[in-house]
Amino acid sequence: MTLTGQMLIGQHPLRGSGTAFRAINPATDTPLEPAYAGGDAAHVEQACALAWAAFDTYRETSLMARAAFLEAIAEQIEALGDVLIERAAAETGLPRPRLQGERGRTCAQLRTFARTVRAGEWLDVRVDSAQPEREPLPRPDLRQRHIALGPVAVFGASNFPLAFSVAGGDTASALAAGCPVIVKAHNAHPGTSELVGRAIARAVAACSLPEGVFSLLYDSGYDLGIALVGDSRIKAVGFTGSRSGGMALCRAAQARPEPIPVYAEMSSINPVYLFPAALAARGDALAQGFVASLTQGAGQFCTNPGLVVAIQGPALQRFVQVASDSLQHCAAQTMLSPGIFQAYQRGASALADHAEVAATGKAAQGPNQGQARLCVTQADAFLANPALQAEVFGATSLVIACTDSAQVRQVSEHLEGQLTATLHLDEADLADARSVLPLLERRAGRLLVNGWPTGVEVCDAMVHGGPFPATSDSRTTSVGTAAIQRFLRPVCYQDFPDALLPAALRHDNPLLLRRLLDGQREA
Amino acid sequence: MTLTGQMLIGQHPLRGSGTAFRAINPATDTPLEPAYAGGDAAHVEQACALAWAAFDTYRETSLMARAAFLEAIAEQIEALGDVLIERAAAETGLPRPRLQGERGRTCAQLRTFARTVRAGEWLDVRVDSAQPEREPLPRPDLRQRHIALGPVAVFGASNFPLAFSVAGGDTASALAAGCPVIVKAHNAHPGTSELVGRAIARAVAACSLPEGVFSLLYDSGYDLGIALVGDSRIKAVGFTGSRSGGMALCRAAQARPEPIPVYAEMSSINPVYLFPAALAARGDALAQGFVASLTQGAGQFCTNPGLVVAIQGPALQRFVQVASDSLQHCAAQTMLSPGIFQAYQRGASALADHAEVAATGKAAQGPNQGQARLCVTQADAFLANPALQAEVFGATSLVIACTDSAQVRQVSEHLEGQLTATLHLDEADLADARSVLPLLERRAGRLLVNGWPTGVEVCDAMVHGGPFPATSDSRTTSVGTAAIQRFLRPVCYQDFPDALLPAALRHDNPLLLRRLLDGQREA
Repeated sequence: MTLTGQMLIGQHPLRGSGTAFRAINPATDTPLEPAYAGGDAAHVEQACALAWAAFDTYRETSLMARAAFLEAIAEQIEALGDVLIERAAAETGLPRPRLQGERGRTCAQLRTFARTVRAGEWLDVRVDSAQPEREPLPRPDLRQRHIALGPVAVFGASNFPLAFSVAGGDTASALAAGCPVIVKAHNAHPGTSELVGRAIARAVAACSLPEGVFSLLYDSGYDLGIALVGDSRIKAVGFTGSRSGGMALCRAAQARPEPIPVYAEMSSINPVYLFPAALAARGDALAQGFVASLTQGAGQFCTNPGLVVAIQGPALQRFVQVASDSLQHCAAQTMLSPGIFQAYQRGASALADHAEVAATGKAAQGPNQGQARLCVTQADAFLANPALQAEVFGATSLVIACTDSAQVRQVSEHLEGQLTATLHLDEADLADARSVLPLLERRAGRLLVNGWPTGVEVCDAMVHGGPFPATSDSRTTSVGTAAIQRFLRPVCYQDFPDALLPAALRHDNPLLLRRLLDGQREA
Repeated sequence: MTLTGQMLIGQHPLRGSGTAFRAINPATDTPLEPAYAGGDAAHVEQACALAWAAFDTYRETSLMARAAFLEAIAEQIEALGDVLIERAAAETGLPRPRLQGERGRTCAQLRTFARTVRAGEWLDVRVDSAQPEREPLPRPDLRQRHIALGPVAVFGASNFPLAFSVAGGDTASALAAGCPVIVKAHNAHPGTSELVGRAIARAVAACSLPEGVFSLLYDSGYDLGIALVGDSRIKAVGFTGSRSGGMALCRAAQARPEPIPVYAEMSSINPVYLFPAALAARGDALAQGFVASLTQGAGQFCTNPGLVVAIQGPALQRFVQVASDSLQHCAAQTMLSPGIFQAYQRGASALADHAEVAATGKAAQGPNQGQARLCVTQADAFLANPALQAEVFGATSLVIACTDSAQVRQVSEHLEGQLTATLHLDEADLADARSVLPLLERRAGRLLVNGWPTGVEVCDAMVHGGPFPATSDSRTTSVGTAAIQRFLRPVCYQDFPDALLPAALRHDNPLLLRRLLDGQREA
């Protein structure tokens, strides 16, 4: 299982012609072999041509065949064994147990989508039967199903080298929908990407699917990604990363002759509300829980609690004190890459320019180690300075002290769109919580009570999304089974004979779907 | 029921301050009283402020209350009586029976959405129960519902002064989703718009809803519409009209600090395929049916059959001959407005520059009467000239003669996105049809066999949408009950106590919804 540094154009490993780059072990700041040479416009062309050629066949694979393919990918990833964990650890600085857990999550996610594909609810089959006798005009027979949008470009994320990368949620949901996928690997973990990409390619071959169902491309810069989004055969884009990166892809997608949807998950500071009764009753425990959530994984989560909102007073002072005491004992942690570490340093330092630093974690003991940080400011200052809302990707958070519950609402109205908002409350806080809840529903994709936002369950009810700039499209989620809907569009078939209808729409309902038949859901 | 020329800011009639304009009776080219003065930025501000103030209340109205409101609108429109039909006929040149039918469709559409609201499937409730004992981590209780996006800007369309205008499909589906609506009236039928707007306002009052649920604005130009789309409190846009108009709104929506979705239905030429066996067996009947569909309502339908694709030969020649004979006897028909008539003249004449004119209808007998026209060209010419794909809004169509079935597929691959594609076929054509079907599924929202694309049923299975440029968002439909999904986004509630949960998500399921509960659909 030697790494080759090669891209995958369908089943064909191919060395790029562009600038070569190597992964950096962030724990040691040393480069890792082999070198990965980026692809160029010709590689984009080849991958897109293969994906397009595969599309009509792949999107009409049976539910069983497509589900089996997703499961085969999971098996192939598991078959990589420790090699995958070793390489991912070297490339990301993430601890092995975390990566083993993430591998489990990634494979479980693929299997969850296999179940979703088999169940077939995503087809959203609707049938309105013909009414030939209707006056003044007869009604035709109308049948709707959903079909795949087309080949999808997926950009691997840095912070989940497995679960949000080559075989991550975007890839799994796009493949589940029937879309071929072309992945632009994240530069920080090219070796992990190669291993997983080869696992997917093996699953493609094992399932006798057209090779264009999956390709994997590298680039040392941004040109290839922009070219990929600009290719007319790409019909949607999945991305998790920075606001600037996501917006660049959105612009590229809108500038095409045929604009396409971009699902970019970009920026969130995940406000945590501490309501008065809860803060008074268990402020110390909340402070401990908060620091644990903040510093977990060096704070490198989209749902990291970057903002705490509460009414000022002794209880909040004590919360800050206990949190500060706890934070001071937190060891600095190796961040995912030198680039992310440097961005963290800049962001944390910019925040400290505008807010009081209540505490910092232990000093770094090695390269690229991020120090946790807790800042405090008054709501007036927060409301006056948009810079205080900028996401600092890492273990830094800002406590906002409000004068009263009216100011809590004012701060809430001032917030940009978020992935999550968390409410810590007791029985006596319910009225206060009710008054702020509508504001938060308008601003976040997931609302939590008495928990912490880190930890995103892969299930039917999950929403990992939210209003801009949390994502570029609040109508969807990038985690959970509803993510399949991002890559589908409805098609209506009018007065089709059974001989031409897809199986999902045939009169005898061979897939045993629970259709919406003449306005009634079938049992 | 005297017309006032006033806008409606919530419940308040208000005269605009901008340039005054009058509707033109296209049949006589005479202006109609009263004058309508356009609104300005201050009116946009007032309407948006009211809509925003109404949003949190309106989006949480009960399913029953919201459905009753939609039904009340239908009743208020019906209560307008003949005044509405008279004014609409004067403003559009459309025959009274057509307008009576359209009123019936409009009110039926509102009642259909009322039923959809009550059924509650659009909430897409998903529940994943807590698993406190799960290892290595407990699973929280996760519940998802859909909520309204926010206030929606709706642009009235010219060609359906009732069904796609002030109380048309966009308004009905946005109100059904829980979104306040601000309509920018179409300039061609301001009086019809005022009557319907006042009917909606009366329904708002009768249902004791916040007045900001509905406002109606006028403008003689484009500034107000662009200002409306640019307002931060508007969260989505519905539009039916020209490609240039739709694209201008898309650009305005993307240029906002917070981009928002635009559902623009813009341009479609609706190819009709005549397969060999069907053409040989019943070419004359097909020609008659084609001309009837083409000339209905002066061809002013988004789904007008603007393109016919068939293999050259005697059968196609005869089809063209019979269609030409029939078309020559078609009277010229008054078009909706002088502007639309002039655009039709330009478009039909541009098409004639590049294709042979096989037939024209009878000459105009009055102002703004469009003459039907049938053109013919070879596939090679069509493939070489993108101008031949431009929509000519009116009763003009182009027949493309292909050398063989391979060229039929080539033409199909060359087509832009469409609202519809129609296949006329007999048993012997099935294999041919099968080979072109995947291409058409990728290009159109609705596929028809042995029918005509005009006539769009309002039902569950309808898709009135399609890939760009048919619409700006192929993932949705603007007709049929699935249109409600355009104005919704998912929100997840984690570990919420029942006391804070919305009714749709409470543990005892008081709305009796068929939830997706722990992966199983409830019976």
